[in-house]
Amino acid sequence: MLVMALRTAVYEANMALQQYGLVTFTWGNVSGIDRELGLVVIKPSGVAYADLSPENMVVLNLSGDVLEGGLKPSSDTATHLVLYQNCPAIGGVVHTHSAAATAWAQAGAAIPALGTTHADYFFGDIPCARALTDAEIATDYERNTGLVMLEHLTVDDVLAIPGMLVREHAPFAWGETPKNAVHNAVVIEEVAKMALNTLLINPNVRRINQALLNKHYLRKHGKNAYYGQTSSKPSEK
Amino acid sequence: MLVMALRTAVYEANMALQQYGLVTFTWGNVSGIDRELGLVVIKPSGVAYADLSPENMVVLNLSGDVLEGGLKPSSDTATHLVLYQNCPAIGGVVHTHSAAATAWAQAGAAIPALGTTHADYFFGDIPCARALTDAEIATDYERNTGLVMLEHLTVDDVLAIPGMLVREHAPFAWGETPKNAVHNAVVIEEVAKMALNTLLINPNVRRINQALLNKHYLRKHGKNAYYGQTSSKPSEK
Amino acid sequence: MLVMALRTAVYEANMALQQYGLVTFTWGNVSGIDRELGLVVIKPSGVAYADLSPENMVVLNLSGDVLEGGLKPSSDTATHLVLYQNCPAIGGVVHTHSAAATAWAQAGAAIPALGTTHADYFFGDIPCARALTDAEIATDYERNTGLVMLEHLTVDDVLAIPGMLVREHAPFAWGETPKNAVHNAVVIEEVAKMALNTLLINPNVRRINQALLNKHYLRKHGKNAYYGQTSSKPSEK
Amino acid sequence: MLVMALRTAVYEANMALQQYGLVTFTWGNVSGIDRELGLVVIKPSGVAYADLSPENMVVLNLSGDVLEGGLKPSSDTATHLVLYQNCPAIGGVVHTHSAAATAWAQAGAAIPALGTTHADYFFGDIPCARALTDAEIATDYERNTGLVMLEHLTVDDVLAIPGMLVREHAPFAWGETPKNAVHNAVVIEEVAKMALNTLLINPNVRRINQALLNKHYLRKHGKNAYYGQTSSKPSEK
Repeated sequence: MLVMALRTAVYEANMALQQYGLVTFTWGNVSGIDRELGLVVIKPSGVAYADLSPENMVVLNLSGDVLEGGLKPSSDTATHLVLYQNCPAIGGVVHTHSAAATAWAQAGAAIPALGTTHADYFFGDIPCARALTDAEIATDYERNTGLVMLEHLTVDDVLAIPGMLVREHAPFAWGETPKNAVHNAVVIEEVAKMALNTLLINPNVRRINQALLNKHYLRKHGKNAYYGQTSSKPSEK
Repeated sequence: MLVMALRTAVYEANMALQQYGLVTFTWGNVSGIDRELGLVVIKPSGVAYADLSPENMVVLNLSGDVLEGGLKPSSDTATHLVLYQNCPAIGGVVHTHSAAATAWAQAGAAIPALGTTHADYFFGDIPCARALTDAEIATDYERNTGLVMLEHLTVDDVLAIPGMLVREHAPFAWGETPKNAVHNAVVIEEVAKMALNTLLINPNVRRINQALLNKHYLRKHGKNAYYGQTSSKPSEK
Repeated sequence: MLVMALRTAVYEANMALQQYGLVTFTWGNVSGIDRELGLVVIKPSGVAYADLSPENMVVLNLSGDVLEGGLKPSSDTATHLVLYQNCPAIGGVVHTHSAAATAWAQAGAAIPALGTTHADYFFGDIPCARALTDAEIATDYERNTGLVMLEHLTVDDVLAIPGMLVREHAPFAWGETPKNAVHNAVVIEEVAKMALNTLLINPNVRRINQALLNKHYLRKHGKNAYYGQTSSKPSEK
Repeated sequence: MLVMALRTAVYEANMALQQYGLVTFTWGNVSGIDRELGLVVIKPSGVAYADLSPENMVVLNLSGDVLEGGLKPSSDTATHLVLYQNCPAIGGVVHTHSAAATAWAQAGAAIPALGTTHADYFFGDIPCARALTDAEIATDYERNTGLVMLEHLTVDDVLAIPGMLVREHAPFAWGETPKNAVHNAVVIEEVAKMALNTLLINPNVRRINQALLNKHYLRKHGKNAYYGQTSSKPSEK
C-alpha cells in the first residue's frame, strides 16, 4: 500500500478528533500530505469512526484523483486540496463541527484573541471567512470553501494562525502534520468556549495587549522559543 | 414472539438514547413500526434503561391495543401513534427531554437554521408546536400532543424536517427507522446547543443563506446526494 | 449494628450523588430516617466518597444525639433534623452544591416551572428561601437554615414540591426515601440548567400553563397516576 | 534522588489536575516546596501528562537553579518561585488555564463571593491581578507575573484567599501542600462557573452577606473549625 506511515498518521489523527470530543457521528475529517510524493491521505466519506483503519483511508494526488482505496473520499476533500495546493507549509488539515467554534462561525464573528491561551497558538484573532455567494455554492462548492479561506489568510505565514472559521458553516484547522492540525482544532474549540464566556462576563472586553500576545506566541514558536524541552512544536510532544 | 427484529431495533435505539447522553432517568422513549404487519413496538413506561431488553418491549397495533407484553407501554404512546397513523413515511419515533432542545421548547421558539450542521439534516427551522389548550390537555392529552405537531408539519415530506419541539414540553424526532430517529434526536440537541451559543455571541444573527441550506441538505439527501459511500442515509452507516 | 438496611440505603444514596455528577469533593450529603425507631442515618462530615461505607454512616436520634458511629456527622445535620422533625412525610434528605441549582440560589431566585420536565416532579416553582439574618447565622446556623426553609414550604404537602434553594447557599431536596431524595436532587439540577438556558433564549418566557402543570404532575403522582408500571413513584423503579 | 516524597506528591498533584478536568494538553503545572531543605519540585515544561513520573520532576533551589533532573522546568517556574520566596505559608502552587476561571481572567474581573461554596474556601473575592505593562512583559515576564500577584495579596494571610486570576491570562492557586493547591484550583473553577451562571440569572446579584461568608469560612478554617473529622484542612482528607 502507498504511504503507509501517512495512512497511519491520518487514521490516528481522525481517531484523536473523536477522543478529544470534537465530533458527533461522522462530523469531522482529517487529511495529511506527503509533499515529496505529492500524495494526500484523507478519511473516507460518512464512515463511522469505529470502522476506520489505516487501510481504508483514501489516497489521492493533489488534483484529487483517487489513487488507492475502495471508498469515496470525504465530501470535503476539495476544500482540503485547495489548502494543500496553495500553502506549502501545511502538512495536515482538519475540519470539524465542534460546538463552540461552530457557534462563532454561525455568528459570523472572528474569535478574538483575549488571553494567553489563545496567544500560545494563534498569532492574532481566528478569522471568520465570508459567506459564499449563491454562485460559489452552486458550482464547485467545496473547492470554493477553500478559496474563501485563502482570501483571509497569509499564505507565506499560514502556520501563524493555523485555523479559520467559515461563516454559516464551521471551523477548519491545519498544521505541519495531521496530529498538529488536530491539536490546533482542539485549541480553537477551547478558546471559542473561553471567548464566549468572557463576553458574557464582560461584553466590553478588550483584546489582549499586543505585547503579551507576542510574548506568549513567541515563547512557544520560532527561533527564540523556550517552552518545552527542545523546540517550537509543543503540540508534538 | 412477534416482530423480534423490530423489538431488537427498538431496544437498541432506546439504549442508544442513553449512550448519547440524551436522557436522565427514564425521560425518553423510542418506538418503531412494521408497516406491513401494522405493528408498533415501544419502550415500556417508566422502566429504567438497565432493565430494558428486546423481550420486554411492548407490541401494539396502530389503534393502540397491546398485543404482546406484560408491561404498560410508554405513557407517550398515543403521541407516537398519531405520527405513525398520519405519516406513512415515518418508521421510528423518539421523544426526549434533552437539555438544550427542551430549553428551546420551553422558550416557545423554533430552532433557527443557522449553519450547515443544521442544514445537513433539517431542511429548514425546527418548528415549535403551539401550546395545547386547557381542553386539549384535559382529554386525550397525549393524542393531542401528536395532533398539534401535525399542524406544524408537511405530511407529504415529513422526513425533510424530521423533528419538532412542543411548546412548554420537549422535542420529538422521527426517521425511516428507530435508529435514524435517534440520530435525528441527537442532531436536534447539538443544533439546539449551537444555536443558543450563536445567539449569545450575535443576537442579530441571520439565518443561513437559503442556497447553502439547499446545498448541504441535498448533498446528503435525495437522488443527487453524494455524501457517504452509497446513498442518502448517512445516519445508517 | 443499628438500622443496617437504612445504613445501606443512605450509603448507596450518597454514592449515587457522586455518580450523578452532583458533587465535587465532599460537597454533598444524604440522610434517611427510620420513623418507627426514630433514628436518623447521615454521612459523616468531610469524608471522601471513596472512603464511605454502610458501616461508617452515623446514627443519631431526632434530637441529634449520636447513638452509633466513631465519626462526626455531617456539619449540616441540624438542617436535616429540622426537616425530619417538622415534616413527617419526609424519609430522606439531600444537600448538594450542584452547579446550576446553586447558581439559582446565589441569584436569589426561585426556579420557575417552565415545562413538563419540571411539572413531572415539582407541583410549582422550586422556591428560594430568604437569606438568614446575622443573628440567625451567629447562633444555631445549621438549625436556622432548616427553619427558613420551613417558612417557604407547606408541611402538610411537603412532597408536592420536594426541594428548595436557600439563598446565598445551595439546594436541598427530599423524598419518601433517601433514594427518592437523590432522584429529586438530580431533577432540580436538570431543571435549573434548562430554566437558565430558557431565559437566555427568551427572557420574557411565561410559566407553564397551570393546566399542563397539573396534568403532568398528576399523571405521575397521586391516586390517578398512570405513568410507570404500578404506582405513583416513578423514581423508585 | 533528592526529596523523593515531594517528587511523588508533586507528580500526583499534576496527575490530579488532569483527572479533575482542569487541563487540556499540557496547559497546567503544579509545584511543591520543602521549606527545610529550600528545594522546589516542579513539572517539566511541555511534557504530556502520560509521560510524567516522580522521577522526571525537576528539582530547583529557591533561586531557580536546577539541581536535579534532565528536563527543563515549567516555563512558568519563575512565577512559582516568586510566590514561594515571598509567602512562607505557601507549600504548593498550581497554574491552569481551566475554562471558566480563564474566562474571568480574560474579562479582567475578580470572581465575586456569591455564596457558601465560595466562602467555604475563599475568605473574600478571588482577585484579578492587573495586566502587565509592556516593560514587565519584555523582561523577566514570568517573574513579573508573580510580582503583580503580590500586589493583590496579603502575604501574612495568603492562605485565606488561596488563589488569584492574572488579567488576560489565567488562574493560579496555592495551598499548604501541592495536593491542597490542586484542591483550591478545582474550587476556583467551580465557583467561576457558578458565578457566571449566577450573573446570567441575576445581573444585579449582591455579594454574599459578610456574616455568612465569615461563618462558612470559619467553620472550615482556623481554631474554631468544626467541619470534618479532626481539623481545618478538609481538602486533605
